[in-house]
Amino acid sequence: MIGLDRTHDVDLRSWVPSANGHLDFPIQNLPLGVFAPGGEALRAGVAIGDAILDLPAVLSANLLSGEAAAAVETAAGEKLNSLLALGAGPRRALRARLSELLAEGQPERGRIAPLLHEASACTLHLPAAIGDYTDFYVGIHHAENIGKQFRPDNPLLPNYKHLPIGYHGRASSIRPSGTAVRRPRGQSNAPGTAEPVFGPSRRLDYELELGVWIGPGNALGEPIPVGEAAAHIAGFCLLNDWSARDIQAWEYQPLGPFLAKNFASTISPWIITPEALAPFRSTLPPRPEGDPRPLAYLTDDADQREGAFDIQLDVLLVTPGMREAGLAPHRVSASNSCHMYWTVAQMIAHHTCGGCNLQPGDLLGTGTISGPDLQSCGSLVEATLGGKQPIQLASGEERRFLEDRDEIILQAHALREGFATIGFGECRAVIGEAVA
Amino acid sequence: MIGLDRTHDVDLRSWVPSANGHLDFPIQNLPLGVFAPGGEALRAGVAIGDAILDLPAVLSANLLSGEAAAAVETAAGEKLNSLLALGAGPRRALRARLSELLAEGQPERGRIAPLLHEASACTLHLPAAIGDYTDFYVGIHHAENIGKQFRPDNPLLPNYKHLPIGYHGRASSIRPSGTAVRRPRGQSNAPGTAEPVFGPSRRLDYELELGVWIGPGNALGEPIPVGEAAAHIAGFCLLNDWSARDIQAWEYQPLGPFLAKNFASTISPWIITPEALAPFRSTLPPRPEGDPRPLAYLTDDADQREGAFDIQLDVLLVTPGMREAGLAPHRVSASNSCHMYWTVAQMIAHHTCGGCNLQPGDLLGTGTISGPDLQSCGSLVEATLGGKQPIQLASGEERRFLEDRDEIILQAHALREGFATIGFGECRAVIGEAVA
Repeated sequence: MIGLDRTHDVDLRSWVPSANGHLDFPIQNLPLGVFAPGGEALRAGVAIGDAILDLPAVLSANLLSGEAAAAVETAAGEKLNSLLALGAGPRRALRARLSELLAEGQPERGRIAPLLHEASACTLHLPAAIGDYTDFYVGIHHAENIGKQFRPDNPLLPNYKHLPIGYHGRASSIRPSGTAVRRPRGQSNAPGTAEPVFGPSRRLDYELELGVWIGPGNALGEPIPVGEAAAHIAGFCLLNDWSARDIQAWEYQPLGPFLAKNFASTISPWIITPEALAPFRSTLPPRPEGDPRPLAYLTDDADQREGAFDIQLDVLLVTPGMREAGLAPHRVSASNSCHMYWTVAQMIAHHTCGGCNLQPGDLLGTGTISGPDLQSCGSLVEATLGGKQPIQLASGEERRFLEDRDEIILQAHALREGFATIGFGECRAVIGEAVA
Repeated sequence: MIGLDRTHDVDLRSWVPSANGHLDFPIQNLPLGVFAPGGEALRAGVAIGDAILDLPAVLSANLLSGEAAAAVETAAGEKLNSLLALGAGPRRALRARLSELLAEGQPERGRIAPLLHEASACTLHLPAAIGDYTDFYVGIHHAENIGKQFRPDNPLLPNYKHLPIGYHGRASSIRPSGTAVRRPRGQSNAPGTAEPVFGPSRRLDYELELGVWIGPGNALGEPIPVGEAAAHIAGFCLLNDWSARDIQAWEYQPLGPFLAKNFASTISPWIITPEALAPFRSTLPPRPEGDPRPLAYLTDDADQREGAFDIQLDVLLVTPGMREAGLAPHRVSASNSCHMYWTVAQMIAHHTCGGCNLQPGDLLGTGTISGPDLQSCGSLVEATLGGKQPIQLASGEERRFLEDRDEIILQAHALREGFATIGFGECRAVIGEAVA
């Protein structure tokens, strides 16, 4: 494992009391984002426990120097694209300095404390302007589950194990956690129906994904080799790629999903850095017997050693009935990032191998990450076998697809013995009013 | 026909001599763009004959007032997005005033002439920052031709005549006319081959499309009704959606084209306004007997009356051999925009019906517009029946797909008796060095 330093030390504690033992944002995490304290202007911040540290204010207080200061200077506006473009050096320098400033024993604590805001009193925004959004399909159990519903005898298409399947998504409709999602209207043509009909989707679904923020980009025509892909990753988030299955089934041939997925996507607003996740990287598991060896442009020793992640992924559901009865959210899925057949480095190498240019602030989705059984499915269409077998909730209710006022909460936690747990924060949204 | 005024008068002449009888940019056109005179800064301009008028300079010279002045004020930077966002009112006011300023008999001619630049001494740039790029598939002969190659017995899928099929494309790799296109590398798996291989595409193709610039956008969750779609169109361009057919065939199942099309798209840099094209709108032809009636959200009386365009579309090819022999470009296709099964208004209404938000500067492609025979195909894969039957060039050469140093030039001209011809300018690019 490369790049571990004292910022990862499990014994490191913060003078911000809520950070110590925090399930998402201990001092070992330090994710970057854009926030607005109630009614004030948007600005860059870092999450620490239940608080957010105002980064431009830290800079103004002369608490940063060198590369760390330069990093925050580029983040002066309402978007972090320029900071992401700087790459790992300034990002690591900023992390190291923030770790010092927020650690127990920091003598400047009295100057820093006033620059903290209670997170509950702030609004979180998209951390960057997303130029292009690409969604992959690297969750192999998901691909198999979906494939079985369409092609029971041949669930995985012949290309699946040769390249990371991906497609372009809609950037304009990506929203941060907390923004209600309107149920889309659209055309569908249920089996046995003579003519397509137009109306609100009746098979609204979530998709549990990880998002990848691109840092430095590449020039058009100049691919990123798989061995250099890590330098282009600025961080990670949770991504709910909301999907209208009835619209999707009718529209997706021959050019892929369109309106079924472009009405909204929700992301967790904090950028979890590669540095924070360094302790949770792991060796790729061997490919199953008989699987093809990836072509050379998708193979790299370092990626084989460090390309996998061990991140626990959960999907929670709150129905209006549960909300009114004061019941806790029901966990409808527990999955893990290890179920990715391709690594993020392979996704980036493939995306750019023909010359396509990535830009700072582009977002890649992994595709739905399902585990091998019904309790680890990353979408309802999988967990309910296409809506045939409803899931039973602790409240006594059941669901085949999402109903109005249902809320979906995605969570991600990286856990490893001997290290502080790193969380992604929440990616949540309520199904709101249908599109009129 | 609505909205014709004296700016459309065929007898209107300009004091810029090259404008009169110009095949693309007579005074009746007045397309908007972004240009840089040799070595100088980028700025907004309007094409007039063989010249470009510097719009900020016209504003500085106090030659504009009211809405026309406001329009140019918003176009102060290097991109026209804010101007596009203003919509039809300011755009029409600017057109009316520019028509006056450039017309014969204009008393201020002496003050305006110094603000003209020779187009041949300028570089043209993308006119706007393209947020999202969506490509449709509304050329019905193209859909049939491609469908026949994959499904000879069932070329059009069941959804085709019920909705305008579309998918999301890559915005970052769109370049203005004149930028060389690098042949992409990628995976392909030719029929009869045991394993996929990685290398330069051997089936590189062009696609003849129209592009649509979005003006005012819509809020997320608030669809644009088909009857209001026209107000969201800022203008049109030519679009070459370069395609690597070997990469496409292997990768496109199940989520659609990805690397086969994201390595480059080329557009003509001038925004041809709806006002310039107003005389060339026409009643939609009746749907063929037996075709389904579109659902209500795709039907509007005004769109039925004015939704079609009569624009002649040409594809010219120059091979290195022709270039060296000094031969004229060979016309490999003559098509027409009337071969669109869906109107632009229907594309916009469909795109947004589920709530997806469009933004000023978004680009929509129509998809390849082929005519009914081999001489009017909008791509080589159609014209050569999938590479089986090469096209013969006047130079004695033949082509199945594009070879290195071939150049493709797309042209568009709106022609109608009693009106000046409106051209789009060129959309050209040479196939350059392969991606390394």
